[in-house]
Amino acid sequence: MEIITSRNNPSVKAAASLRETKERKRTGLFLLEGARLCADAALNGVTVTEFFVTEKAAEKYGKEFSLLKERSERSFFINESVAEKLTDTKNSQQFFAVCREKETSPVIDTSGMYVFTDNIQNPDNLGAIARTAEALGADGIIVNSGCDIHSPKALRASMGALIRFPVIRADDIKALLTELREKNMQILSSVVDPDAASIADLSFVNGGVLVIGNEGNGVSKEVLELSTGTVTIPMKGKAESLNASAAATILIWEFMKNK
Amino acid sequence: MEIITSRNNPSVKAAASLRETKERKRTGLFLLEGARLCADAALNGVTVTEFFVTEKAAEKYGKEFSLLKERSERSFFINESVAEKLTDTKNSQQFFAVCREKETSPVIDTSGMYVFTDNIQNPDNLGAIARTAEALGADGIIVNSGCDIHSPKALRASMGALIRFPVIRADDIKALLTELREKNMQILSSVVDPDAASIADLSFVNGGVLVIGNEGNGVSKEVLELSTGTVTIPMKGKAESLNASAAATILIWEFMKNK
Repeated sequence: MEIITSRNNPSVKAAASLRETKERKRTGLFLLEGARLCADAALNGVTVTEFFVTEKAAEKYGKEFSLLKERSERSFFINESVAEKLTDTKNSQQFFAVCREKETSPVIDTSGMYVFTDNIQNPDNLGAIARTAEALGADGIIVNSGCDIHSPKALRASMGALIRFPVIRADDIKALLTELREKNMQILSSVVDPDAASIADLSFVNGGVLVIGNEGNGVSKEVLELSTGTVTIPMKGKAESLNASAAATILIWEFMKNK
Repeated sequence: MEIITSRNNPSVKAAASLRETKERKRTGLFLLEGARLCADAALNGVTVTEFFVTEKAAEKYGKEFSLLKERSERSFFINESVAEKLTDTKNSQQFFAVCREKETSPVIDTSGMYVFTDNIQNPDNLGAIARTAEALGADGIIVNSGCDIHSPKALRASMGALIRFPVIRADDIKALLTELREKNMQILSSVVDPDAASIADLSFVNGGVLVIGNEGNGVSKEVLELSTGTVTIPMKGKAESLNASAAATILIWEFMKNK
């Protein structure tokens, strides 16, 4: 394995630049950090183009090291200084993989249950929603262009769910939702509106999509118009003060009871 | 109003030291930051001993400034450098109050619904649980000595719920739970155990206490023994990977359906 000791090495610079959304979009690559997350990627059909690890980390995460070394197109030992350049956490595991975005999007099973994050921009929220959706047995999540699923923060907050889980990227959300409606899936947009149906009173014949809107603006107008209905969390206390992530958890929990 | 420009002013040093748990315990005082949080305290019967604010913040938060100036035992204008010494956030509102812990604990209404955080140590989780409990209409939260409800992080994460909400401090948890049992309240400890009752299948005659355990160790043995039953989140997906805060949200949501 080649050894890199310079923070100015072109591969290191290219990998570090993937912390920027712009660079990820330009290259179609993204950077993973952490032994578990990198291993999840390698085991879930993600192409790893470059693997960077310190000798210390290789020893500590022996199993993941062997896996990544075998599956990566190129592998490098790095020193602490290079690891510091690549990390965006305080306590780095010193274990990194440059991955290629999957080219094809998974197919939606029309009898399945999906969570659609409509322009969720906060990476912690996006990651938490993916983690909760996976934990509660959803069949996948749908994202549109406003969601940066390869942001390091979102990936970390998802604990790998954004890597392991079927993530459907809907570039043309209108076409997708129209198709799903025609196939008799319910498209339910969550709203803050006491007149909307309670999320606790759903019943499903076919599969469904639960839409969770942007933290500040809610579900977008375009998506609302394509929905088959709206749902809300019935309020008893001061539910307007429920935070976005807690509200999403309750919505997904009740939605998944219909599976 | 007196003006303080030195970071070594004794009042400033004493206030800054309240960021440490040890000092809070020693003095029975705590430090609040942010106009909204300080105003919530003044409006909810908390004694404010000292109020520190920059002139800029006094102008920006005029209503809260007038309130705090009126309710505080002593008020000071400070400069930016002093504000920087007092804050533990990146974007300080430059608005601080030193408060006295309430001496008496609220009384529990035995027909009410309470959330008991059993040694929840992560301040973000503690704050989030308090916020969710308030939002969903719980009657109060019960904490034991393992929960630092006056930590600046917990207060912030709770969005003031830990100030507004009845918070019962149970120093002798055994005595308290024994008394509540005798008064026919249900004490339900949440556990990860597929054989426990589903949190979704509860029914209440009288009031109840939902116990949420420590992130790593779960509900403590002492509390489990004093519980009238255990409850769990029934699992479909990989629910073992639900994060502590999402699990708490689901538990509180289902629990509060019984109100």
